[in-house]
Amino acid sequence: MQAGKPILYSYFRSSCSWRVRIALALKGIDHEMITINLIKDGGQQLAIIEYLEETRPTPRLLPQDPKKRASVRMISDLIASGIQPVQNLSILEQVGQEKQLTWAQNVITSGFTALEQILQSTAGRCCVGDEVSMADLCLVPQVANAERFKVDLTAYPTISRINKTLLSLEAFQVSHPCRQPDTPAELRA
Amino acid sequence: MQAGKPILYSYFRSSCSWRVRIALALKGIDHEMITINLIKDGGQQLAIIEYLEETRPTPRLLPQDPKKRASVRMISDLIASGIQPVQNLSILEQVGQEKQLTWAQNVITSGFTALEQILQSTAGRCCVGDEVSMADLCLVPQVANAERFKVDLTAYPTISRINKTLLSLEAFQVSHPCRQPDTPAELRA
Repeated sequence: MQAGKPILYSYFRSSCSWRVRIALALKGIDHEMITINLIKDGGQQLAIIEYLEETRPTPRLLPQDPKKRASVRMISDLIASGIQPVQNLSILEQVGQEKQLTWAQNVITSGFTALEQILQSTAGRCCVGDEVSMADLCLVPQVANAERFKVDLTAYPTISRINKTLLSLEAFQVSHPCRQPDTPAELRA
Repeated sequence: MQAGKPILYSYFRSSCSWRVRIALALKGIDHEMITINLIKDGGQQLAIIEYLEETRPTPRLLPQDPKKRASVRMISDLIASGIQPVQNLSILEQVGQEKQLTWAQNVITSGFTALEQILQSTAGRCCVGDEVSMADLCLVPQVANAERFKVDLTAYPTISRINKTLLSLEAFQVSHPCRQPDTPAELRA
């Protein structure tokens, strides 16, 4: 392993790992990946993204304008604090097998209803305007979770449109859970 | 209401509102407060704190050094994404009356175990070194939640020590849930 090269401890399915993988791909940061089979994950990886932004500012993941930066962080926090932690694996285990699908669907639906409304005033091609930001890094993994939990996305046209646009970008593809070193064979694409 | 004065929509008991109230007090930002009786809250208020930090940088709530900033954000996110959203009111309602105390205690205990370990390598008088940061704004409201849910804090000496130090500061006192305009009489102090 090359000295000084950043190491990402990653789990293919973790939304939090995926957000960081997208940031690394967008910024073209060469790194090692050590895969770990998580039984639970948290939202802490936004700290990594902010650190990457401060130490390797190009391309920007936060707009220059403070109000737009606040919009990006509001959307990121809505997803990373308001939705993802309440539907992650360790919480679903506590909820129990029988109720976990309904639980996850309720959490995502109520979060996406708020998010769709916010995006209607902030979005261009991406969550905030036309440039990819930290908010987009949060959106795509959360939509993938929604799909896994069979949430009907027709009520969220803005979310769906942005997600589709983002998934066509290289950085979102190489970082996708279906293309990671620890992705099980049956989930590869 | 004076034009241009910032308005905080606040709920006395909300951890998220409290974090912002501390930031406003530390930065000495004159503001109006509109109280709202929340039935649920989210973690989005970190976006407000980051915005305040960018537009009114003195005193700093994030250290200048990128590694220390990452520590502050890691601790803030651990609390604001990893602990608080999983024990907030709307989630406890879904968990149900009978199980909610145990649920909240489990979530807080597992979060505080991780937090205590992190603080042992980052803390001085405050969560990261000796200066008050965004991490401290997150710590104090979360310890208050832990006390409300009767979590035994003896296993967390660093958390307890820092919390005590912070509660002696003016900004943490004026922003305290027991001293807000919407605090019910029986909870005032």
